[in-house]
Amino acid sequence: MSGAREGQFADWMKTVQHKVEHELSAFLPPAGEEPRKLHEAMRYTALGGGKRVRPLLVYAAGALFGADERALAHAACAVEMIHVYSLVHDDMPCMDDDALRRGKPTVHVQYDEATALLVGDALQAQAFDVLANAHTVPHDRLVWMLKVLAHAAGAAGMCGGQAIDLDSVGLQLTLEQLERMHQLKTGALLRASVVLGALAGAEVNEEQMQALNAYARAIGLAFQVVDDVLDATADSATLGKTAGKDAAANKPTYVSILGLEESKALAQTLRDEAHAALAPFGDNARHLRDLADLIVQRNA
Amino acid sequence: MSGAREGQFADWMKTVQHKVEHELSAFLPPAGEEPRKLHEAMRYTALGGGKRVRPLLVYAAGALFGADERALAHAACAVEMIHVYSLVHDDMPCMDDDALRRGKPTVHVQYDEATALLVGDALQAQAFDVLANAHTVPHDRLVWMLKVLAHAAGAAGMCGGQAIDLDSVGLQLTLEQLERMHQLKTGALLRASVVLGALAGAEVNEEQMQALNAYARAIGLAFQVVDDVLDATADSATLGKTAGKDAAANKPTYVSILGLEESKALAQTLRDEAHAALAPFGDNARHLRDLADLIVQRNA
Repeated sequence: MSGAREGQFADWMKTVQHKVEHELSAFLPPAGEEPRKLHEAMRYTALGGGKRVRPLLVYAAGALFGADERALAHAACAVEMIHVYSLVHDDMPCMDDDALRRGKPTVHVQYDEATALLVGDALQAQAFDVLANAHTVPHDRLVWMLKVLAHAAGAAGMCGGQAIDLDSVGLQLTLEQLERMHQLKTGALLRASVVLGALAGAEVNEEQMQALNAYARAIGLAFQVVDDVLDATADSATLGKTAGKDAAANKPTYVSILGLEESKALAQTLRDEAHAALAPFGDNARHLRDLADLIVQRNA
Repeated sequence: MSGAREGQFADWMKTVQHKVEHELSAFLPPAGEEPRKLHEAMRYTALGGGKRVRPLLVYAAGALFGADERALAHAACAVEMIHVYSLVHDDMPCMDDDALRRGKPTVHVQYDEATALLVGDALQAQAFDVLANAHTVPHDRLVWMLKVLAHAAGAAGMCGGQAIDLDSVGLQLTLEQLERMHQLKTGALLRASVVLGALAGAEVNEEQMQALNAYARAIGLAFQVVDDVLDATADSATLGKTAGKDAAANKPTYVSILGLEESKALAQTLRDEAHAALAPFGDNARHLRDLADLIVQRNA
């Protein structure tokens, strides 16, 4: 990327992140109303942090398909709420037992476990509520979008990936098994973000859907490979979460299977695959391309 | 009810319960596929038990509005999945810490806490998946139904009620505060069941919606009043769950505020209000009427 391009992309990202923060705040229940602790905790965990990678994917794909601002806001906040709920539950003592997230104490530390459980549950419901209320999207397409989100969030997607992850602690996974786990655990929702952004704008034909899926598959894996590299190399302060915890928990990672250098090379290959998948869309796909680069080049 | 009427109602209930068991089994992920433990645990908790009160309400309201069998199956299983997920999470150690549910060990006891957390999360997503796939319902109405379910499940409904419940332990609530908690905690999903059943069949006009809401409000409260009475009077074997736990947990109940006899009288009054609300629908509402009676007369 040239300096000017890079500046444009950075501006675009900042604008989207700003919008998402504002829209999330509007969609979340008000802090001053009963039940206060639940509402406060939902806002505590969803607002004021995060890279908003999934909303960025929604907006970038939406730009490609001419989506309007309201449709994008609803779709972006819905996927982000699913993501945030999964972090809250994932951090709980019975799962990863993590005390730090996005540089802040996790919900069960800041509040209590019961609240963390309810915050996650309520955020998931709210995600579907927010998406179902995307009034500017024709209902045929909106039902399609709701199916995409529900499928990505459930046992055939994110929850299924989490379950495989739990079952894999201490096991020696093959690269294929590791890939399948991540395609469900994080890939499904990243893919849903791209697809929801597109559907927020227009009907997507079979060929376009295949291109979007190929792109999403590549960045989904790249995201995880880079996560594993960062977990092995960065410090907790930079990550805003506990570093080195995968190795400590004896979890299989790309780094543990492939080694550090080969993992870095794989991330680059996946970035190239993501770019190649976008070829049919021409220059309009530049935000999606830049996001692929960002995912591979990020340091947190 | 006459003996013949009672027999007819019992047959209808059995038929619906049977259908729901069959449909739930088809909608749930197969036990033999990976991730096995998650799938097995989802099936363990959702199948083979429960009174299926919410599905019965869906089918009864659906009968009134001419809903087709497929639409009813999707709507009934969706609400039941939300209900089952809420039980799984509610039973976890950080919430009610209950070991027995529907006469079986709870999910976190039978499996483990992390699995219970994921089972609940996956069932909630699956509920929206199942409802969004109700192909026989026109999409305008389906979006409406999805909004109703999401709203009833989230912070403005069930999760909000749970949060108020948590915050109320050890407090002296007024009757109004107790009623508000239950209207959210259990009432919202019971009301959603009635409304989803109706919408599965037809557009519901304002007047009809008011009548259905008045009915649902009355049976929702009656349900909770009877729950409190049973918790104070029945034994665990009859209930299929731990009896006396509200008093033990120092939770406010109708019995603790009104006393036993006045609580029983209130349940009867609410049953009469439910019947009165159904007057505009004539004899077609007989299943809804019978369900109001069942809710008040049940002993488990």
